[in-house]
Amino acid sequence: MTSTTKSLDSIVRQLDTNGHELLSRAHSGERPMPSVEILSDIVENLRSVLFPGYYGPSEITPENMPYHIGSTLARVERLLADQINRGYCFVCERDQRDLCADCEKRSKDTARKFLECLPEIRNQLLSDVEAAYDGDPAAKTHGETIFCYPSIRALTNHRIAHELYRLDVDIIPRIISEMAHSDTGIDIHPGASIGNRFFIDHGTGTVIGETCIIGDNVRIYQGVTLGAKSFPKDEGERLVKGLPRHPIVEDDVIVYAGATILGRVTIGKNAVIGGNVWVTRDVPPDARLVQSKSMHLAFEQDATDIA
Amino acid sequence: MTSTTKSLDSIVRQLDTNGHELLSRAHSGERPMPSVEILSDIVENLRSVLFPGYYGPSEITPENMPYHIGSTLARVERLLADQINRGYCFVCERDQRDLCADCEKRSKDTARKFLECLPEIRNQLLSDVEAAYDGDPAAKTHGETIFCYPSIRALTNHRIAHELYRLDVDIIPRIISEMAHSDTGIDIHPGASIGNRFFIDHGTGTVIGETCIIGDNVRIYQGVTLGAKSFPKDEGERLVKGLPRHPIVEDDVIVYAGATILGRVTIGKNAVIGGNVWVTRDVPPDARLVQSKSMHLAFEQDATDIA
Amino acid sequence: MTSTTKSLDSIVRQLDTNGHELLSRAHSGERPMPSVEILSDIVENLRSVLFPGYYGPSEITPENMPYHIGSTLARVERLLADQINRGYCFVCERDQRDLCADCEKRSKDTARKFLECLPEIRNQLLSDVEAAYDGDPAAKTHGETIFCYPSIRALTNHRIAHELYRLDVDIIPRIISEMAHSDTGIDIHPGASIGNRFFIDHGTGTVIGETCIIGDNVRIYQGVTLGAKSFPKDEGERLVKGLPRHPIVEDDVIVYAGATILGRVTIGKNAVIGGNVWVTRDVPPDARLVQSKSMHLAFEQDATDIA
Amino acid sequence: MTSTTKSLDSIVRQLDTNGHELLSRAHSGERPMPSVEILSDIVENLRSVLFPGYYGPSEITPENMPYHIGSTLARVERLLADQINRGYCFVCERDQRDLCADCEKRSKDTARKFLECLPEIRNQLLSDVEAAYDGDPAAKTHGETIFCYPSIRALTNHRIAHELYRLDVDIIPRIISEMAHSDTGIDIHPGASIGNRFFIDHGTGTVIGETCIIGDNVRIYQGVTLGAKSFPKDEGERLVKGLPRHPIVEDDVIVYAGATILGRVTIGKNAVIGGNVWVTRDVPPDARLVQSKSMHLAFEQDATDIA
Amino acid sequence: MTSTTKSLDSIVRQLDTNGHELLSRAHSGERPMPSVEILSDIVENLRSVLFPGYYGPSEITPENMPYHIGSTLARVERLLADQINRGYCFVCERDQRDLCADCEKRSKDTARKFLECLPEIRNQLLSDVEAAYDGDPAAKTHGETIFCYPSIRALTNHRIAHELYRLDVDIIPRIISEMAHSDTGIDIHPGASIGNRFFIDHGTGTVIGETCIIGDNVRIYQGVTLGAKSFPKDEGERLVKGLPRHPIVEDDVIVYAGATILGRVTIGKNAVIGGNVWVTRDVPPDARLVQSKSMHLAFEQDATDIA
Amino acid sequence: MTSTTKSLDSIVRQLDTNGHELLSRAHSGERPMPSVEILSDIVENLRSVLFPGYYGPSEITPENMPYHIGSTLARVERLLADQINRGYCFVCERDQRDLCADCEKRSKDTARKFLECLPEIRNQLLSDVEAAYDGDPAAKTHGETIFCYPSIRALTNHRIAHELYRLDVDIIPRIISEMAHSDTGIDIHPGASIGNRFFIDHGTGTVIGETCIIGDNVRIYQGVTLGAKSFPKDEGERLVKGLPRHPIVEDDVIVYAGATILGRVTIGKNAVIGGNVWVTRDVPPDARLVQSKSMHLAFEQDATDIA
Repeated sequence: MTSTTKSLDSIVRQLDTNGHELLSRAHSGERPMPSVEILSDIVENLRSVLFPGYYGPSEITPENMPYHIGSTLARVERLLADQINRGYCFVCERDQRDLCADCEKRSKDTARKFLECLPEIRNQLLSDVEAAYDGDPAAKTHGETIFCYPSIRALTNHRIAHELYRLDVDIIPRIISEMAHSDTGIDIHPGASIGNRFFIDHGTGTVIGETCIIGDNVRIYQGVTLGAKSFPKDEGERLVKGLPRHPIVEDDVIVYAGATILGRVTIGKNAVIGGNVWVTRDVPPDARLVQSKSMHLAFEQDATDIA
Repeated sequence: MTSTTKSLDSIVRQLDTNGHELLSRAHSGERPMPSVEILSDIVENLRSVLFPGYYGPSEITPENMPYHIGSTLARVERLLADQINRGYCFVCERDQRDLCADCEKRSKDTARKFLECLPEIRNQLLSDVEAAYDGDPAAKTHGETIFCYPSIRALTNHRIAHELYRLDVDIIPRIISEMAHSDTGIDIHPGASIGNRFFIDHGTGTVIGETCIIGDNVRIYQGVTLGAKSFPKDEGERLVKGLPRHPIVEDDVIVYAGATILGRVTIGKNAVIGGNVWVTRDVPPDARLVQSKSMHLAFEQDATDIA
Repeated sequence: MTSTTKSLDSIVRQLDTNGHELLSRAHSGERPMPSVEILSDIVENLRSVLFPGYYGPSEITPENMPYHIGSTLARVERLLADQINRGYCFVCERDQRDLCADCEKRSKDTARKFLECLPEIRNQLLSDVEAAYDGDPAAKTHGETIFCYPSIRALTNHRIAHELYRLDVDIIPRIISEMAHSDTGIDIHPGASIGNRFFIDHGTGTVIGETCIIGDNVRIYQGVTLGAKSFPKDEGERLVKGLPRHPIVEDDVIVYAGATILGRVTIGKNAVIGGNVWVTRDVPPDARLVQSKSMHLAFEQDATDIA
Repeated sequence: MTSTTKSLDSIVRQLDTNGHELLSRAHSGERPMPSVEILSDIVENLRSVLFPGYYGPSEITPENMPYHIGSTLARVERLLADQINRGYCFVCERDQRDLCADCEKRSKDTARKFLECLPEIRNQLLSDVEAAYDGDPAAKTHGETIFCYPSIRALTNHRIAHELYRLDVDIIPRIISEMAHSDTGIDIHPGASIGNRFFIDHGTGTVIGETCIIGDNVRIYQGVTLGAKSFPKDEGERLVKGLPRHPIVEDDVIVYAGATILGRVTIGKNAVIGGNVWVTRDVPPDARLVQSKSMHLAFEQDATDIA
Repeated sequence: MTSTTKSLDSIVRQLDTNGHELLSRAHSGERPMPSVEILSDIVENLRSVLFPGYYGPSEITPENMPYHIGSTLARVERLLADQINRGYCFVCERDQRDLCADCEKRSKDTARKFLECLPEIRNQLLSDVEAAYDGDPAAKTHGETIFCYPSIRALTNHRIAHELYRLDVDIIPRIISEMAHSDTGIDIHPGASIGNRFFIDHGTGTVIGETCIIGDNVRIYQGVTLGAKSFPKDEGERLVKGLPRHPIVEDDVIVYAGATILGRVTIGKNAVIGGNVWVTRDVPPDARLVQSKSMHLAFEQDATDIA
Repeated sequence: MTSTTKSLDSIVRQLDTNGHELLSRAHSGERPMPSVEILSDIVENLRSVLFPGYYGPSEITPENMPYHIGSTLARVERLLADQINRGYCFVCERDQRDLCADCEKRSKDTARKFLECLPEIRNQLLSDVEAAYDGDPAAKTHGETIFCYPSIRALTNHRIAHELYRLDVDIIPRIISEMAHSDTGIDIHPGASIGNRFFIDHGTGTVIGETCIIGDNVRIYQGVTLGAKSFPKDEGERLVKGLPRHPIVEDDVIVYAGATILGRVTIGKNAVIGGNVWVTRDVPPDARLVQSKSMHLAFEQDATDIA
């Protein structure tokens, strides 16, 4: 190695972050980070409780099913309480450490409260299964949608994450939704409120923002954005966080592939939004909104210019 | 825990699905579900047979290659026959159980028939490798496209899944195509028929529907949809499944990023479809179809309104 | 099995690639392929050095942090040097084998040079963290963006891959960027040059081409393409590789979801490109470019025609 | 490689066992071997049911314990039934294949019958725990003997294996006892009948033969052999298998380290057998049998002769 | 299944240990058991610090060795403190739970104190390596004894366990010594005090009791017992625990295979104990004690009687 | 932590072995150690070739067996050549590094030569299987001895290790024999020469030294030592290594449990050595040697004195 090469010691010293404001809080050594691996395990366990037989152990029979559910929930409850607590620590200011005992108790209470929501979460997901089967001519059986459809996978994560979000759990819901985002390309913020019988076909690139409110029986396609239009800033030029800024989509709406709907607009009941359109205003109920057709027939003269 | 918290017993009882119509068939205990993990193992093994040296064991030499191929195929055949059988069970009505012995034999025959298709699958994939190298200025070597390109990864899964689809295997082809969808963001239904020298650049968000027919030497880009336009329903208001409803794309066509082509339309030989356009009618051979340019130059007056 | 079924021997013979031009170079048995698994391990180790406490072991304290960094870098250096060497072999012509000793030394030198770039890579990534926090109203803490945001994950891979690309490492940079592509749906070619404070919100389907040059403080959204417009061919009808063919995006530009910018055009400082627009020409500084609004309000008469 | 080196093909041909009598029955491809890995999993699961809290998941509470036990038993039952069936196949003559359906049913019945024995197995093991605690001055708590003592580990395997042996399960019991042999150096044949409150201190090298009958409250040490003395052969000079040929050890006997007791002899109630002695005759109740002391004091003249 | 078969519910009820005295303390759900898996990880990490290059990562160089040692110790310290704390809980009476915070602090202090002993532990082990090389004609290099010899493996575990024993750590030392017992067949109680340059050849079946005191430069062989002779009981007929009851072996003693030395006797400096002998009295310095030779030449008349 | 606690830095400095003679050669960073994990993998692969159907993949059929054998041998050859090379490095003096290229070639040649021995190794092992079945009344089938008997497991390792020992491979044979020692408690030095039809019943604690020569059809039991009696030293008081110093055991000999045979003595053809006897002289053919019976009947007067 030439003499101009830096030594390992010198590189290490430059990378030592002691005293670095943004990074130093993370490595207190006492407050472990949430674990993506364990959260993934939790979600897979929940999938096996929500759809027994489709996921989880194959030995499930009517005789032993309650045992499977009970032991899985016991495991989930313990792991989840710990992760919730880690989530509190993640956003916690350092000088509140005397409240840690409270956080631990709060974590356990929250984990149990979450378990209580599971029957309702399953009802919602079963309605989503019906919607996927009814909405896709390629679906041969209900089971196929449970087992293979990115929509059901993403919604399972979302409905879990959304309940945790409503229970004021920090960071954990976001991690759970990012897992689904990575797996399916569907990015639903855990804050989004979504009714029954929701179906996203194909789904890659679909984005649903934090303050969206979606009614029952809505169907959307890949590449659809339900996003924010503008981000108000406060006097200090910092983004104001938490304002309602995403669309309201009423019951029975369909949004086709690539459509972009931005801002706190309302898409009225039974409206249809065509593919690739761009919407920043309210759309009345029963409307059918599409790209103007003339555009599609513009033939190019000069073939060398395209692509 | 407060007295209002539900007990674990009570939650378990609500989640017990015995008697629940949609879920009860899955957990008979006798009919294991297809395994995504094993199917993934099968596909990785096939990749090592189709592209020896690039995937699989690194000790391959001319002397030992036949042994590697043979032992890998033996493993694949056994695992695949079992998964095919599970696929049959997945869609099977309960009262046909006396036919199970037939299904087991049929599974084994089908697995062998599938192996016989592998030489042809490899020929197709090698033509895809040529197309990727020829079609992307960033590709430095053919090997790079085999090793890194999402297009080759997705097409390997597709060409495997498509043969299984043609052999009337249930559910398994769909699982294999969803694996590629999750990995690459490219969603090709196993039913789609695709010619030689096919290349999808970047690929995220591209969707190719069940009844598509794609010719030779076609190139498409990320975010392209070859989808269905409308879904006929039967008298009972249920979707009619299986009808031809996706585009026919003839030889030598290029479809640029974000274009949407819907319905049983034909894109004629050598046509070029520009980015982000929306097509629901036939396009003649050699046509160049793009967005009207005027639109792109519409400058906004009010900067605060966008985003 | 019927007599018309091919034997395993016959299938194996057809799949034996000895003598096949495209495949035979890969399996010399002496030159192992780069390993996606090990490269993934390397990147995860680097993540733990770049963001200690967020990734990697949880026992990090100010007292032991230098030891963690040092031992991790030692591990990365050894593994990376080997992968770099495999990368050289991957593109190497067979008759240059007498240069292998040089390659091994060059690999080690390059690995050390790469380590020297890590402090600068971290500075860039911390500016990206600031940009993500400042640019997304849903971000509650800086830590959340480090821990969950696809943008930070993809940029960590990119900034690593880009340094390796600049150090003339073969194939390895591309593999590292494809990992991020698969995880996040964000496809950044390792050749792309990207300034500080870069943020990609949601990100699925975003593509940034090999010769892009992006300034500081640029923000883009999901489904944005910064691509090539045409691919010049040489006299032999083969693509000319390596030409500048992707956009230059100057400081402080925002590009909204689904926009497509193609060719060696310049998007001037502080410009805003609206969602879903299609740009193939230069855009002046401070411009606001959006889709013409009229199009969006074209209501369809015939509801049965859409979808 | 020199020309005298054999080719891989030639080595493979010599190792091909098709037609080899001893080996050809094993690889029918239809009858999988018992799996040591799965049997190990079964035993570990049973340990967690027999000693909940000491083994298995750490989230066990009074509220959720029944769920853990039930789900673990369900898993064990399914896996064990399959292994029992594989055990039947292991010893099965080829032409009995038409009885396979019976074997499968018999396997399931046997697995359930085995589960019914578990409460009694636990009672025995708890008496063994008491005996270990009462018999070893180094044992500080009962829990320590459950958690660390080779005696309890080996007896858990033995009492499981012995019940399976009594249920006429083939080969599986032997595999389970060999696992304990490998882990602890204690070799108890599954056929041996052992009473309550049995304790083996240290245990390495202790051997207990197939037809041993051991009473209650017996304590033995490392290196003790309870073996056979002679093996009668039949007219064809083949060993007669299954005859009673190992010692009967009555209640309250102690056998010290390295003692060897051979043949169908009876060690009477409350007898003590000293270390390293060699016994091939009955020992009356209450006897104390040791090596003659004189031997131990034979001092050697010639130091160079020993070792 | 026949009607006489018990239901799963009924088996579960019988196995539910709520209220069972011996078992109920283990499953409080709040006090996780020590983990054999993690302790094994700790010991392997320590091996890599004690014998760097022989164990642990292969990238160790003079430049990076301090980083490896430091990061490994940081990991060990965190894991070990947690295991030590679990050890305290293991033996803790339930009503002392208000002292848990103290235990946690004490665990951390103890883990650090243990780390401080490592340099001395390594010095001892290096003297053991010398003794193994010097004592075994089959040893070709010092490295071979480090890498392969059960004696060094068992002594590494023992010297670690003994320090923890001296630091009053509960149960953990015993678990660590049982790991070595299972791996090597050498059973050394963590309480045993052993001088420098200790070597056990072959080792299977060797037992060294809790209160043994062994000097420097002692060599013993397989199957040697340094055990207790009698176990005094208290008035309540319970064993008195903790009394000195095992041999003192002075410097330079050799004990050959299968010898048994029982009770608080002293084997004087430089004595040699022959194979298979039985010693329950003091042996003077420099003595050579062997079995009387006459015995070995007793030829049997009746061949059918032996075996 | 109290002020008297040492800092991590100070502990690390004491453990840094740079400059330590015994340890510094190991961590050159360029010469990786042999890997116990990979050697274990190699041995398991060989087991599957030697006993196909019993070990290794379950899909073996007559049609595909050659493929399994060939691909397994290809894998073994590559891994083994690398381990053999590491073995050479393990004992290599530093200044011979210019010979490394030769070592690499020699490693490959040796690995191939070893493969050529496998048919003979299998013949020997099959004779051992016959001997185990014929020699143990508890053996129900030949398959049971292949699948469960420690004797066959230890001999498989031994016969592999012995061939490597004869091929002058360094350290690797010893590691392979220690694996079997750890698993079975049977310690056979790889140098020992063992004829056909060898059987060790139970086996724990049996030791067979480096220069033993054992004939055909020999049967021994647990706790038998075939060891060295004295170790000649050279003028510098160092052990002379490599001399013949262990017994010669001729054909058809039986040695019962716990017998100790030391030195270069010959046990004549067809001799029987009884349990626990101590032999340091030649034993003539057909002799029956047992402990004098009188000793066994020495009854103790004082019961409180024993144990």
